[in-house]
Amino acid sequence: MSHTYEYPRPALTVDCVVFGLDEEDLKVLLIRRDLEPFQGRWALPGGFVRMDESLEDAARRELQEEAGIRPVLLEQLYTFGAPGRDPRDRVVSVAYFALVKLSDHRVHAATDAREAAWFPVWDMPRLAFDHADIAATALQRLKGKVRYQPLGFELLPPKFTLTQLQRLYEKILERELDKRNFRKKLLAMGLLEELDEVEQDVSHRAARLYRFDHKKYKQLEKAGFNFEL
Amino acid sequence: MSHTYEYPRPALTVDCVVFGLDEEDLKVLLIRRDLEPFQGRWALPGGFVRMDESLEDAARRELQEEAGIRPVLLEQLYTFGAPGRDPRDRVVSVAYFALVKLSDHRVHAATDAREAAWFPVWDMPRLAFDHADIAATALQRLKGKVRYQPLGFELLPPKFTLTQLQRLYEKILERELDKRNFRKKLLAMGLLEELDEVEQDVSHRAARLYRFDHKKYKQLEKAGFNFEL
Repeated sequence: MSHTYEYPRPALTVDCVVFGLDEEDLKVLLIRRDLEPFQGRWALPGGFVRMDESLEDAARRELQEEAGIRPVLLEQLYTFGAPGRDPRDRVVSVAYFALVKLSDHRVHAATDAREAAWFPVWDMPRLAFDHADIAATALQRLKGKVRYQPLGFELLPPKFTLTQLQRLYEKILERELDKRNFRKKLLAMGLLEELDEVEQDVSHRAARLYRFDHKKYKQLEKAGFNFEL
Repeated sequence: MSHTYEYPRPALTVDCVVFGLDEEDLKVLLIRRDLEPFQGRWALPGGFVRMDESLEDAARRELQEEAGIRPVLLEQLYTFGAPGRDPRDRVVSVAYFALVKLSDHRVHAATDAREAAWFPVWDMPRLAFDHADIAATALQRLKGKVRYQPLGFELLPPKFTLTQLQRLYEKILERELDKRNFRKKLLAMGLLEELDEVEQDVSHRAARLYRFDHKKYKQLEKAGFNFEL
């Protein structure tokens, strides 16, 4: 391979903002750093891009290595390249954004045995590097997506109640929604399939279960809509 | 500076998709390559990122050097990093997207005297590298933006007719729009200010001139909307 450009090159990394939902909160996956700089500080999972792998492959490899996670939805978010964002060297990072079902992803601090944990997005510890900016950008993207694309398929269990779905939207939008209005608008989209089943093992009155209509979901994902909540 | 990562690094470039509008068409700025690979082929303006400049600064510097252009609107589009996209070496490119008023930017092949020209977006020559993919991604972004953000401020002259504005939307969306419906929806947004002036020096009946209401424009840029055309 002939190198036509022999000047110094920035190092290139990927960093991933992985969102998951549990009973309580919308959460983000963090890894505790075991090396300087920012040793002991929490950070987004990520690492250096290898010469022979694509950017997305690098992101998937890091998530697998650092937390044993294989997200279904992984999309590029933004590339962060301010000089000085890494105290060691010029490092440019391509950030990715992932949604996973938390129930499928009980984090096991994976191969390299670093500590990994889920934190509520509105209550994260102080992060290494510019990772707080990267996480904030990902949250903005998520808030934007709610408005013009169907959302929830990657975050909710296969069967869910309307209350669970509403809670997801409320967590993302950071505000309460009117129940009646939310249901009316959501059902009108034709996105949900009402099942002949109700919740099991609940102390309150068991609520109806729903699932997403996959065909309609994919269709609306492509076409977009405007969901004024 | 201590380098903690001494493995080979991909080279890092920026590439810019600059759109402009003239009387005829929506156009994109291309530069003819004077070096191998793809010598003589048209390509997007761009080049290598320096160690001490931000990604956006690199994009602005290249546009200035290669075509004498200083765009007002320049935003990051996507980062292209497939191994093999450059036959010389592993090169990752952060693509930017710019809108300019063509009238302000009669291209002068700038400092390094390469040939620069505007091409209609629907009739571009064969491009170097994966630049056709990058241009297509930028066009998709532009089509998406039309639907949920005001657009035109960066592309149209300060005072314009409703026909000019409709033509811009039609060029971007690649289809004809109903004149009556387009005007009704656009005026209802409160985005346009009707002026007490008409076109000058036209052979047909002179049409009313409009300009954007800047405050409302900025507001809608931030809040977004859903413009079903």
